[in-house]
Amino acid sequence: MAPVDDNKLTGLVAATFTPLTSQGEINLMEIGPYIDYLIEKQGIKNIFVNGTTGESVSLSVAERKSLANEWCLKARGKMDQVIVHVGCMSLKDSQELARHAAQIGASGIAVIAPSFFKPSTAEVLRTFLQEIAAVAPTLPFYYYHLPAVTDVKVPAREVLQNIEKLIPSFRGVKFSGSDLLDFGQCVSCSPPHWSLLYGVDEQLLAGLVLGAHGAVGSTYNYLGCHINNLISAFNRGDLIQARSIQFQLQELLSYAIKLGFDLGVNKQLMIEVSGLSLGPPRLPVRPCPHSYAKEIAHKYHTIFL
Amino acid sequence: MAPVDDNKLTGLVAATFTPLTSQGEINLMEIGPYIDYLIEKQGIKNIFVNGTTGESVSLSVAERKSLANEWCLKARGKMDQVIVHVGCMSLKDSQELARHAAQIGASGIAVIAPSFFKPSTAEVLRTFLQEIAAVAPTLPFYYYHLPAVTDVKVPAREVLQNIEKLIPSFRGVKFSGSDLLDFGQCVSCSPPHWSLLYGVDEQLLAGLVLGAHGAVGSTYNYLGCHINNLISAFNRGDLIQARSIQFQLQELLSYAIKLGFDLGVNKQLMIEVSGLSLGPPRLPVRPCPHSYAKEIAHKYHTIFL
Amino acid sequence: MAPVDDNKLTGLVAATFTPLTSQGEINLMEIGPYIDYLIEKQGIKNIFVNGTTGESVSLSVAERKSLANEWCLKARGKMDQVIVHVGCMSLKDSQELARHAAQIGASGIAVIAPSFFKPSTAEVLRTFLQEIAAVAPTLPFYYYHLPAVTDVKVPAREVLQNIEKLIPSFRGVKFSGSDLLDFGQCVSCSPPHWSLLYGVDEQLLAGLVLGAHGAVGSTYNYLGCHINNLISAFNRGDLIQARSIQFQLQELLSYAIKLGFDLGVNKQLMIEVSGLSLGPPRLPVRPCPHSYAKEIAHKYHTIFL
Amino acid sequence: MAPVDDNKLTGLVAATFTPLTSQGEINLMEIGPYIDYLIEKQGIKNIFVNGTTGESVSLSVAERKSLANEWCLKARGKMDQVIVHVGCMSLKDSQELARHAAQIGASGIAVIAPSFFKPSTAEVLRTFLQEIAAVAPTLPFYYYHLPAVTDVKVPAREVLQNIEKLIPSFRGVKFSGSDLLDFGQCVSCSPPHWSLLYGVDEQLLAGLVLGAHGAVGSTYNYLGCHINNLISAFNRGDLIQARSIQFQLQELLSYAIKLGFDLGVNKQLMIEVSGLSLGPPRLPVRPCPHSYAKEIAHKYHTIFL
Repeated sequence: MAPVDDNKLTGLVAATFTPLTSQGEINLMEIGPYIDYLIEKQGIKNIFVNGTTGESVSLSVAERKSLANEWCLKARGKMDQVIVHVGCMSLKDSQELARHAAQIGASGIAVIAPSFFKPSTAEVLRTFLQEIAAVAPTLPFYYYHLPAVTDVKVPAREVLQNIEKLIPSFRGVKFSGSDLLDFGQCVSCSPPHWSLLYGVDEQLLAGLVLGAHGAVGSTYNYLGCHINNLISAFNRGDLIQARSIQFQLQELLSYAIKLGFDLGVNKQLMIEVSGLSLGPPRLPVRPCPHSYAKEIAHKYHTIFL
Repeated sequence: MAPVDDNKLTGLVAATFTPLTSQGEINLMEIGPYIDYLIEKQGIKNIFVNGTTGESVSLSVAERKSLANEWCLKARGKMDQVIVHVGCMSLKDSQELARHAAQIGASGIAVIAPSFFKPSTAEVLRTFLQEIAAVAPTLPFYYYHLPAVTDVKVPAREVLQNIEKLIPSFRGVKFSGSDLLDFGQCVSCSPPHWSLLYGVDEQLLAGLVLGAHGAVGSTYNYLGCHINNLISAFNRGDLIQARSIQFQLQELLSYAIKLGFDLGVNKQLMIEVSGLSLGPPRLPVRPCPHSYAKEIAHKYHTIFL
Repeated sequence: MAPVDDNKLTGLVAATFTPLTSQGEINLMEIGPYIDYLIEKQGIKNIFVNGTTGESVSLSVAERKSLANEWCLKARGKMDQVIVHVGCMSLKDSQELARHAAQIGASGIAVIAPSFFKPSTAEVLRTFLQEIAAVAPTLPFYYYHLPAVTDVKVPAREVLQNIEKLIPSFRGVKFSGSDLLDFGQCVSCSPPHWSLLYGVDEQLLAGLVLGAHGAVGSTYNYLGCHINNLISAFNRGDLIQARSIQFQLQELLSYAIKLGFDLGVNKQLMIEVSGLSLGPPRLPVRPCPHSYAKEIAHKYHTIFL
Repeated sequence: MAPVDDNKLTGLVAATFTPLTSQGEINLMEIGPYIDYLIEKQGIKNIFVNGTTGESVSLSVAERKSLANEWCLKARGKMDQVIVHVGCMSLKDSQELARHAAQIGASGIAVIAPSFFKPSTAEVLRTFLQEIAAVAPTLPFYYYHLPAVTDVKVPAREVLQNIEKLIPSFRGVKFSGSDLLDFGQCVSCSPPHWSLLYGVDEQLLAGLVLGAHGAVGSTYNYLGCHINNLISAFNRGDLIQARSIQFQLQELLSYAIKLGFDLGVNKQLMIEVSGLSLGPPRLPVRPCPHSYAKEIAHKYHTIFL
């Protein structure tokens, strides 16, 4: 068995949208151009595919495999890392996707907590994660913490306790929550080879000041270059500049939230900004009302000129 | 195309557990005995399979098909109706299961609201349901309303508005919620050929007094005969007797809740009472701690002797 | 010390609005006519004053005393019982109000759970209630359970455990919740001299079928005669009729909820129906937009003609 | 009318506990020593009295006046600023306290959103605040945002819109929430004479990086000197050191939360650390179990040695 790759994941990671055709079928053709766009226009070197932004729960297992395969194929030699999210409500499905991710050369896998039957303790959640990690033991494994959506009440720091004993391939957390006591405790307990990635784009600066090693988010699809500037400013101690960029992102999202920001609107904004053909979202995500997308795109261009 | 069967669903419907082997694989062998037990010992004539109690979200699509097929096969000539729950997070998967349910002779299908991406309006939820119903147009279709688990905020009465125009095969609701304003409005707006089935076992009497035509629940697996008595008492106007049985069920569940009642404990209680080999639940549902099951089974026998 | 009055509280109890002048000061002058209206037009014989509907938390202690005094004075010889709600966030204030209620001849007092600092256990909540009851030991004491507003998670049935040992004057619960497992357990554990009063008007029938001895609510201010008919129909076993009236109330509230039903709208509806001068609500309750009140009053008259 | 004092509030502000006697009555005698302790041992120059930590909702209006008076009296010439929280559920009571605060020479007043009847819009909340500010127009006015406790859903940034037109004395926000999009928007829209004070102690660093001008919290009663070091480190760009102190506070609170951290435990910890006689909390806050306080105090001394 090959050892787990120790290429620590840092910096910006774009949580990709899933390209669909106008008929709602997966559109593998657009993945190559999507990757080129992220690299060339947004300065993005890592992607997180088939996650929440990618509408993974709305895809069949077969579709997720096709997509993961294409992302890995087209990213080869271009992207630094492709993390494939393999979390499902069904452990069986997750295991199948984890095995597949290993075969296609993913850089790592991530798993969200199941949210229909919610794990009531850290122990049962860790065991669930372990059962998935165990079928792809050579792949770096990330826990994806998204409590506002899953409504799972287990703090991430409790999930991390002794987790390397159960999951030797454990390498970090995509922490998409606003409980920074919990995030701080995750950071302070982390060994150096773990990556603590913050996932609430609109308050990334808070994640950074508490020691995040990188960030995963959907807005980095269309704001990667700006947020790379935010990180650079933060790293050189220029908080005025870093804060200014953070406030720009907040202004955009605040505006969008008032209109009714959801994944469909988010996807359409990406289409407007990038020019890529990503298609509509799939039900139950509502297609973006045409007027919303135009207004938000206009706001985007007004703020980020 | 055959017309939708107009055999109105009434009375008790057991939401079945999924038999697993001790290794956690689906155990089709136990389905025949399970059906016989429900008929002979519990007076149950209808079942709702692959629902929440059946851990459907923890099963793969292939497993759900195998199970649905076996339930329909073994129930033939014995049960009045077998409703197959085909709801999934993924519309594609639900459509596949709905087509399959039509092929195997299910009496009807039911769909829960997707709960990861939550429909924000009745309209988008209805459209989601319609897309599933449309691939199995000859099967009676039921909406499964479980807001405490899905956290979908759309009232059931709004889902029902003009729903037969979109879903001609629409035949009713499994209403598993405690908002009886909403339930009452569903009942009062229902045409005679719909079935409004109440799904909160511990307050079934409240559903009945508001006009429920039947009830779907997990406790009817092991309390069917008692709850049939409750319904009979209610129907003949003997509220003292009906209330007394309802309070017995409440006492059992109240006791169980204090210990930590979840699906794993519920399944184990069924095993203890019925003697069937249903196996453990599947992760992320936690296997029942041995002591809990014994205590609750003892309480069961104390109350229902 | 006089013994606790054993006049069991049953039937409908109107939770009264607090009459204010157009300048927002308490308007004692309207209390007499209000009582006459309830008796003559709505068939109401019991009132619950200074509760949620009465905006008690928005009143000063001095105002609550003046109001309680006037309600008791004007109700004498006309109403069967006047229950004075004395619950406050501050135990000291509640004690002062409880002592005052005893002096003015209230029929009983009620106390809601404090909701800013939420009691975390039944024990601490019981002790809080006890400290209030102890200063007015001759007055029948009622616990007011309103979990949707207080967000206190303690089940009422746990509050009731051994409560008469701590509060010898304990006489019942105003149960304004939709957890009917909890309500049923309260009923089934109650000694005969307690009154279990159900407080969710739109599902009163559910409370009755589970054994409620009466009902407290705001809609009885303007629907008392209709709901008295509902109770009569229920008592003689005419569920068709009882359900029909319940559905009428549900239709009214469902309509109102869509417009934006809150206490300000509710108060204005009472003004429209009764012709009493009750004035606006007090901030932070928003005054009713003029158009809403007219629409809901029109709906009222359409339904209850 | 005197102009509003423009002494901008910055740095650490301790949210004080209310000293009670062992019989549970307010203990004015301990206020002088308490102030001396904060200044001498904790380096605290500003206090926020009668707030959540001070159990204000559990105090009568008369008690709040006595306490406010004594805090202002004893702080004179020692503390820089004394902010008196005058928020109540009742507007009348708040107005009375606001007038009183002006008479006793408070440095400013603060008001929390009412939480029993929750303002549904920013407009109604602003109007509520305005009615209080208007009776003490010379006092700097602060909005106290504590959504996790009040469950009021109005974003602080919406409350601030055009607020100086309604409240000319408006001077800032005590923002005790974890929605940093909202906090960032408050900061970025603030004129220079406002103070944006962050109020979630365990993630103060996040507030600072987004531009907080100061911080209000209960832990500064016993950790003021350490957190002053955190702020100094942050200000000089030493994030390693700042983070290290933040993690210490997180470790302490994380430990306490596992035991069951509430206001009673918090108060007892202050007693253990400071040696002051602050007495028990008042019901419904539960007195601290003896063992908890010892364990947490021990943890405190282990971490902050």
